[in-house]
Amino acid sequence: MSPEEYLEQTREQGLRELEEFLRIPSISSQPERTDDVRRAAEHLRQRYQAIGLEHTAIIPTAGHPVVYADWLRAPGKPTVLVYGHYDVQPVDPLDRWTSPPFEPVRQDGQLLARGSSDDKGQIAVHWQAIDALLRTRDALPLNLKVIAEGEEEIGSPNFAEFAHAERQRLRADFVVVSDTSMVRKGLPAITYGLRGLVYFELRVEASSSDLHSGSYGGIAPNPIQALAEIVTRLKDPSGRVLVPGFYDRVRPLTDEERAEFARVPVDEKELVASYGFEGLAGEPGFTPRERQWGRPTLDFNGVWGGYQGAGAKTIIPGSANAKLSCRLVPDQDPAEVAEAIARHLEAVRPSTVRTSLTQIAGCSEPFLTPLEHPLNQAARRALRRVYGSEPAFVRSGGSIGAVLPLHRELGAPCLLVGFVLPDSRAHAPNERLDLDCFHLGRRAAASLWEEIAAITPSS
Amino acid sequence: MSPEEYLEQTREQGLRELEEFLRIPSISSQPERTDDVRRAAEHLRQRYQAIGLEHTAIIPTAGHPVVYADWLRAPGKPTVLVYGHYDVQPVDPLDRWTSPPFEPVRQDGQLLARGSSDDKGQIAVHWQAIDALLRTRDALPLNLKVIAEGEEEIGSPNFAEFAHAERQRLRADFVVVSDTSMVRKGLPAITYGLRGLVYFELRVEASSSDLHSGSYGGIAPNPIQALAEIVTRLKDPSGRVLVPGFYDRVRPLTDEERAEFARVPVDEKELVASYGFEGLAGEPGFTPRERQWGRPTLDFNGVWGGYQGAGAKTIIPGSANAKLSCRLVPDQDPAEVAEAIARHLEAVRPSTVRTSLTQIAGCSEPFLTPLEHPLNQAARRALRRVYGSEPAFVRSGGSIGAVLPLHRELGAPCLLVGFVLPDSRAHAPNERLDLDCFHLGRRAAASLWEEIAAITPSS
Repeated sequence: MSPEEYLEQTREQGLRELEEFLRIPSISSQPERTDDVRRAAEHLRQRYQAIGLEHTAIIPTAGHPVVYADWLRAPGKPTVLVYGHYDVQPVDPLDRWTSPPFEPVRQDGQLLARGSSDDKGQIAVHWQAIDALLRTRDALPLNLKVIAEGEEEIGSPNFAEFAHAERQRLRADFVVVSDTSMVRKGLPAITYGLRGLVYFELRVEASSSDLHSGSYGGIAPNPIQALAEIVTRLKDPSGRVLVPGFYDRVRPLTDEERAEFARVPVDEKELVASYGFEGLAGEPGFTPRERQWGRPTLDFNGVWGGYQGAGAKTIIPGSANAKLSCRLVPDQDPAEVAEAIARHLEAVRPSTVRTSLTQIAGCSEPFLTPLEHPLNQAARRALRRVYGSEPAFVRSGGSIGAVLPLHRELGAPCLLVGFVLPDSRAHAPNERLDLDCFHLGRRAAASLWEEIAAITPSS
Repeated sequence: MSPEEYLEQTREQGLRELEEFLRIPSISSQPERTDDVRRAAEHLRQRYQAIGLEHTAIIPTAGHPVVYADWLRAPGKPTVLVYGHYDVQPVDPLDRWTSPPFEPVRQDGQLLARGSSDDKGQIAVHWQAIDALLRTRDALPLNLKVIAEGEEEIGSPNFAEFAHAERQRLRADFVVVSDTSMVRKGLPAITYGLRGLVYFELRVEASSSDLHSGSYGGIAPNPIQALAEIVTRLKDPSGRVLVPGFYDRVRPLTDEERAEFARVPVDEKELVASYGFEGLAGEPGFTPRERQWGRPTLDFNGVWGGYQGAGAKTIIPGSANAKLSCRLVPDQDPAEVAEAIARHLEAVRPSTVRTSLTQIAGCSEPFLTPLEHPLNQAARRALRRVYGSEPAFVRSGGSIGAVLPLHRELGAPCLLVGFVLPDSRAHAPNERLDLDCFHLGRRAAASLWEEIAAITPSS
C-alpha cells in the first residue's frame, strides 16, 4: 500500500485522533489549565511513541514543556526538525461559540474546536503523514526530529532559552515550521519571510509637574504638542519614515517577489468593510501587499499623558508618553535602526522638552529564506504535486516566535508551510478546520519529506 | 476715633476673630465635612450680624449655601456687592504641615492655617474694615451687600444659578471680588482681566478595532499619527495658533497695558528652576507676561489611545483621543472660536481618519474691566494711599468662577482686589497669611468704600 492509499483509508481514524487531542483544553495562558497543558504534552508524546517515533521526551522549560520525538535511521540523509505548538488560545467570549470549544463537532465540511487549525490540526497532519510513511514503508526518507511547544500562544517566553540549551538534541539541516496558513482553498503558500520588530517607549517631559492651564498657558511648553511634533518628524503624512538611514539596508523586492505578491493582492474593499477604514495608508510607490510584507514600518502603538477622564481638567501636562515600534525587513538590523531613531529623535526634539527613549526587550530580526532556496523549491514541488497548483510565495508582516531562535541556534534554513485556511478563526470563537484541507495537508506533509530528502548539499 | 485708629487698636482682636473662623474645617469637597461647611456659614452670618450688618441670611443652593448680609442706609450712594468664599481646600498631604491645618499658629509674622489667605483671611479683612467704619462713624459711605460662597474650591457648580435666582437681592452698581493676590509685599494689584475658556474632547478614529501591527503595519492608518498631524496643524512649533480667524477678535494690548505688564515681568529663571522647564514656550512677538495675560492659547490637556501598559503590545490602535482647550482674551467669543476650530479640524484632518470634536460644558467668556474704568481708578487711589505705592494693573491667565455670573446677572463692573501674597501656599500644605498684609488689607478695605462712594455716575 502506498502512503497515499494508507492516508486515504485512515481519514476517519485521523480525524478521531485529532478530536481526541482537541478535547484537552491546553490553554497556556491560564494557570488553572496547567495540568491540562501537561496532559496534552503527555498525550502527544504517547502519540509520537505509538506511531514509531523514538527518544520521545517531555522537556521541561521554565514554563510549559516541549514535546520531543525523533526518527534518525536514515544515515547519509538530511535531518529535518519539525516545529508546531500544542497549546491553544483562551476561548472567551464563550457565549459566541455555537458548540463547546473542547468538544469537537463536524459541520459542513469543517471541524469546529479550539486548536483545530491553530495548531493541533497541523501537528496531527504531520504525525499522520509520518505514521503513513512508517506503516507503509517502515522508514522515512530522511531523519526527522519533531518538537511541539507549549507556550506559543503566550509569546514563546522560554523558547529561545530552550532552543539554546537543547541545541545539540535539536541539531538539523533544515527546519520546518507549520503554524502558518494557505492563501485560500486550493492555493497553498510557502511563507518565506517574516518581518522583525524593534519596540520603544518614548517619554517627553516638559516640566516636573502638571500646571494650571490658565496660569501657565502661553508660557509653559506643552509635552503633547512636542510629542506631536516629534511624531510628524519621524514619519511624514504620506507614510514615509523620515529617520535618516532607515531604508538604507532594506533589500529591494525582486521582480519575482513583486510578481508573487501580485498573485495574492490585498483585498482593499474587504479590509475597508471589515475594519471601517476610511482608506489604506502607507509608503508611496508600493502596493498594499508590498508594504505589508516587504517594507519596514514605524508605527505608534499607544499614547498617553495629562488628563484622560470625563469632562475637563485645565492642566498643561508635565509629560506625555508613547509606545512606538518598527517592523523590519531584511537586511535591516534592529540595533542599527534603534540607534538611528535615537539619533534622529535627538535632532528633531523641540528644545523645550526632554526626551527619553527606552527600548523594550523582545526585539527580533527580520527573517528570510530566499525564494529560490532549495528548501523552498523542494516544498514548492511537494505542494504543486498534491494541490495541483503552483504554491504562492508569501511573507508575513509579523513574526513567529520560534523561527528565529531555531534559525539562530541550528544555523539551518527554515521552511514555513501550513495546511489550514486563513479564515479558520484562530484565536476567535468557532475556530475551525476545513476537512478537505486537513486531508490534503496529510498528503502534502508526507510528500514533503521525499522532496526534502532529495535535496543535494550542492543544490 | 478714626477707622484707622480703631483698626490699629483692634489688631489682636481682629486676628483672634479670624483664628476662630479658621478653626472650622469647611472643606467643601468632602461630604463628611458638610456640617462643618454649614457651621462656617452660620459662624460668618453671626459675625456679620454682630458688626451691624443687616438682613443676614444663609441662602441655600443645590450644594453648600451662600452667606448674605447688607447695609443699605446710604440713599443716593452707590451699592457695592462684595464677594468672597468661606470654603477651603482639602489639607492632604497632612504630614507635610508643620502644625495642624485647622489650629492656627502665628510664626515669623505669618498666620499658618488652611484658609488663612484663601479666602477666609480676605473675608475677615472686609468684615473688620466694615466694623471699623460702623463703630467709628456709625455709617458706611455707601450701600454694601456682602456674600460669601461655600463652593468656590469645587468650581462654583451652583453659583451661576444662585446669581440668577438672587439677582434682585444682589443688585448693585459695582462688584468687588476679593479672591486674588498682590504682586508682592508692598505692591498691591488690581486684577482687571481674566481669560475665558473653551474646552473640547477630540476623537480620531482610524478603524473599528485595534489591529495587529505586524499583519496591518504598512496598510492600516494610524490614529496616533493622524492625531499628531492634526495637533501640528492647529498650532505651529513657534506657538502660534494656526486656526484661521483665531486671532481676529483679540483686542490688542495698549501701550499702557504693556507698560503695566512690564512692571511685573515673569521671573523666567525662577519658573525654570521651580518647574524644570528647558525653557518657556509661546507665541512670538510677546513677552511671557503678555502671552500669559493678554494673549489667547490653544493647549492640549490630555491624550490617550492604544497600549499604555508595561512592555510591548504590538497593535495599531483603532482610535486616539485628546483633550484640548483655549484660553480666550477680550473680545474673543467662545462659540465663535469653537466653530473656527471645528471648521479648521475638518480642513486639516487626514483623509484616512474620522474625527469628532465635542465641546465640554463650562466654557467661559473672557472678562475685562478697562484699566481706566472709574471703579479701577477708585481702587488705585485707595491702594496707593494705604500702601504708599502705585498698584499694579494685572490680569489673570485663568478665570474666577463667580465673576462672570455676577457680571452677567447684575450688569455691573467688577473690581478684583486682594490683600494677600501670591506665595501664601493656597491649596498647599502650610497655607499662610502674612500678618503685615492682613493689617494693611483691613485699612485698604476701609478706604476702598470711601473712594468708590466718591465715583460720580458721569465719571
